[in-house]
Amino acid sequence: MSQAVQATRSKVTGDLYAEVQTFYARQMRRVDALDIEGFADTFTDDGVVVHANGERAQGRERMVAGMRANLPRYRDIAVRHWFDHLLIETDPEDEDTLRVSYYTLVTQTDREGKVSFQPTFTVDDVLVRRDGELLTRSRVIHRDTPVELPAP
Amino acid sequence: MSQAVQATRSKVTGDLYAEVQTFYARQMRRVDALDIEGFADTFTDDGVVVHANGERAQGRERMVAGMRANLPRYRDIAVRHWFDHLLIETDPEDEDTLRVSYYTLVTQTDREGKVSFQPTFTVDDVLVRRDGELLTRSRVIHRDTPVELPAP
Amino acid sequence: MSQAVQATRSKVTGDLYAEVQTFYARQMRRVDALDIEGFADTFTDDGVVVHANGERAQGRERMVAGMRANLPRYRDIAVRHWFDHLLIETDPEDEDTLRVSYYTLVTQTDREGKVSFQPTFTVDDVLVRRDGELLTRSRVIHRDTPVELPAP
Repeated sequence: MSQAVQATRSKVTGDLYAEVQTFYARQMRRVDALDIEGFADTFTDDGVVVHANGERAQGRERMVAGMRANLPRYRDIAVRHWFDHLLIETDPEDEDTLRVSYYTLVTQTDREGKVSFQPTFTVDDVLVRRDGELLTRSRVIHRDTPVELPAP
Repeated sequence: MSQAVQATRSKVTGDLYAEVQTFYARQMRRVDALDIEGFADTFTDDGVVVHANGERAQGRERMVAGMRANLPRYRDIAVRHWFDHLLIETDPEDEDTLRVSYYTLVTQTDREGKVSFQPTFTVDDVLVRRDGELLTRSRVIHRDTPVELPAP
Repeated sequence: MSQAVQATRSKVTGDLYAEVQTFYARQMRRVDALDIEGFADTFTDDGVVVHANGERAQGRERMVAGMRANLPRYRDIAVRHWFDHLLIETDPEDEDTLRVSYYTLVTQTDREGKVSFQPTFTVDDVLVRRDGELLTRSRVIHRDTPVELPAP
């Protein structure tokens, strides 16, 4: 990254950092509680999720239907999504739209307390602020894959 | 959560977010160093911890005694508590009392470097600020359990 | 820690907390992408890393050479570094130098999605701000080891 590019990046304020973290803290409590409607409500009406396998769900109705179909996966499993390394980019001309990327680790704990892990992911979100509250407008989930190295 | 409820939630400032994170960063270093007295000092004199199994320890003396009894568990194990998704709620009428909830993942690393995991937990704390420093007044630890789904 | 020591600690502002977290979010994306030169560029020219095994690499050139030699380790592995519990200490007489310590968990995900873990680490950094951007001047990595308990 060139110095020129770095110099034009705007700093993330502490208040914005806390606002975004708090948004995800609430959103993840809902998804981890399998509160499907509550989770969908954290998206805009036309919100879209592109899953790591390429499946795309646009709009709350399709999002809810897709998650409902997947519910049996979570029988007897407590799932938790862990985030790290948030990068928040603001648009100087539109302070109510944010690009956020982050790492995600997903734990699944069974009734005996045994923890297993899904592959790690990196997620790219676009968040918008409506009436003072953040919502997710789009989410693209990337499964982390090995970097290609030159042949040995 | 209704829009009305959301509208009355006060925003967490960046300074408060950093203050709470820093408090936990110090508190967890002490518990992970098995510095029992130092850990107990991060609680109020009448501080209470309710463990996931329902056991309750109130007051620094009982807290110290309980942790001392558990010390043999940590022989040959480096334990680390990882937090995520802090939700900080402030009381507009008492800015020195905070309700904080967070996810916890606990790693145990043995001498060979093998990492194992305790079940995941969600914790509800009440923190109070005394002479400018945060202390834990109460902590309730919940083991994460599967959500009950309707029968298939 | 005495009350007197606590009283003289300066509070970490939200802005500084967000700045440091953002720095690490960028730095870890580079190391996890195996962008060796990009990672080295997040250090000062005379930057030094002391690894948990005692190996020491000073200066970007040696850092790059060391990492390049280790690249084959990451064939077919997606590595991710997860941070937690940042403690940021500022020097009131030099606001452009920071001492930061943090917990690190390192995941390695293979092509099938299986996640494995390196031992946990605690890291002590010195960061400096140059032309408004943070850089790492030194990093000392400690492998977490069991606390020595009195004989049973």
